[in-house]
Amino acid sequence: MRLVTFQGQSGPVIGVRLGDKVIDLSKAAPDLPGDMIGLLESGESALAKAKAAADNAAEDAKVDMSSVKLLVPIARPGKIVCIGRNYAAHAAEGGSETPTYPEVFYRGSTTLIAQGEPIIRPKCSDKLDFEAELVVVIGKLAKHVAEADAGAYIAGYSLFNEGTLRDYQRKSSQWTVGKNFDNTGPFGPEIVTSDEVPEGAKGLRIQSRLNGQIMQDANTDDLVFTIHNLLYRLTECMTLEPGDIIVSGTPAGVGYARTPPVFMKPGDIIEIEVDGIGVLTNTIEDEK
Amino acid sequence: MRLVTFQGQSGPVIGVRLGDKVIDLSKAAPDLPGDMIGLLESGESALAKAKAAADNAAEDAKVDMSSVKLLVPIARPGKIVCIGRNYAAHAAEGGSETPTYPEVFYRGSTTLIAQGEPIIRPKCSDKLDFEAELVVVIGKLAKHVAEADAGAYIAGYSLFNEGTLRDYQRKSSQWTVGKNFDNTGPFGPEIVTSDEVPEGAKGLRIQSRLNGQIMQDANTDDLVFTIHNLLYRLTECMTLEPGDIIVSGTPAGVGYARTPPVFMKPGDIIEIEVDGIGVLTNTIEDEK
Repeated sequence: MRLVTFQGQSGPVIGVRLGDKVIDLSKAAPDLPGDMIGLLESGESALAKAKAAADNAAEDAKVDMSSVKLLVPIARPGKIVCIGRNYAAHAAEGGSETPTYPEVFYRGSTTLIAQGEPIIRPKCSDKLDFEAELVVVIGKLAKHVAEADAGAYIAGYSLFNEGTLRDYQRKSSQWTVGKNFDNTGPFGPEIVTSDEVPEGAKGLRIQSRLNGQIMQDANTDDLVFTIHNLLYRLTECMTLEPGDIIVSGTPAGVGYARTPPVFMKPGDIIEIEVDGIGVLTNTIEDEK
Repeated sequence: MRLVTFQGQSGPVIGVRLGDKVIDLSKAAPDLPGDMIGLLESGESALAKAKAAADNAAEDAKVDMSSVKLLVPIARPGKIVCIGRNYAAHAAEGGSETPTYPEVFYRGSTTLIAQGEPIIRPKCSDKLDFEAELVVVIGKLAKHVAEADAGAYIAGYSLFNEGTLRDYQRKSSQWTVGKNFDNTGPFGPEIVTSDEVPEGAKGLRIQSRLNGQIMQDANTDDLVFTIHNLLYRLTECMTLEPGDIIVSGTPAGVGYARTPPVFMKPGDIIEIEVDGIGVLTNTIEDEK
């Protein structure tokens, strides 16, 4: 099942995409929670109800994808947990060793934008870089999760473009500011439930393309810390909640590490793709 | 005005502390939003209404402080923005230079605990350290705020004990995991509105005391980046929202930098105090 959040007549609603149609769950399953975190909190039975409702939806609950304004799948995740240097070749292109423990930082929800919305290049920096990443969406409260059990806590997967201002990332030892500019974090376009993805999202090709040119091209098998291992390590320390997301790291090929460096500029089109999860496409605009 | 969130009969409610009484705003001003972020989003006129309602409250809206269970003033801030090495003597005791740009990392709301609740020492580490910090509470949407205007965006101040697992802080270059263990972030006991605090919270003594012994003892005048400067620098990059908090950094005297090192252990009592803001007191317990 491919879950989306989109603009309804009186605010955001959630739906299920089936081909070129979106089933509006506020019409097809009005008894379900009306927002994505609420749906996830309601567990697997609610997801099963959503799927059944979508499969049997009346015509008046169907909307053409072409007329849908997609929103960020989860507008305000409780935590946006990002993993740095989680592909060895990316660590190496930045002159760093392969980490022995995950490099973790957070983004805030004020960075998030949806499929099709412009990434904003801020006034103070032109060092705007892209990072293709696979997103893990947490489906139930997770603490002290064993690696072997991690799959049960994952509701689904999505995509992230971890837009980064490289000069601000390096103004101090902590990367948080460079990773937290407003409107630099495309997330979406949809959440693909775990049953449609290989266990631990293994073996999936991951790419970024800038104006059609392949910039990053790797496979999730190259993750230093696997998705299930990340759940084990993170939940040794913290509770992950339904709707929290893990942005699992980016492969080699980012702009700053190229010769000469490549940064995104107004008019560019940047696409992130992971096999079976989808394509996340955004343009660049300058801050007004 | 001293704003609190406390346990009401059917869930959290907000109130105003006046001496040894708390005025329950759900009774004294039922037309106001019932949660702290809602109150802050409603702006200065709502704060003025809360103050008037508290000053004129009927007896049935008053509760004895002794019978009140305080909760975290803001249960789920949109962002918990923490500043590292923001007192030069603390940077030096850790062997670091005074920063030229703020060291920023985030905590998640899953770390927060209230006045009087136990800080949990996790199973995986006994390197649990304290950090006395002054909290800035954002009162209105802030982006590109000039330093001279910063005061207008600050609703009030509070206290934080930035409980840190020092070994996990240093397992990678990013400090986030060591700063994000569940139940290690005491926040409170109350929010003191800006009108009762010197401009930019300058000139205030800040202390931590472990089992009554003074461990940290400094003054907010020693901040490397002042409160108003932090608002300028952060909002160059990100939008701060009502209810977001800035945890502004800790002075010298933390446990790990002592000879021999001092870490908190079950049964300890740790107090954080800033002149005029209050005292935040917590005990330590082992994870079950």
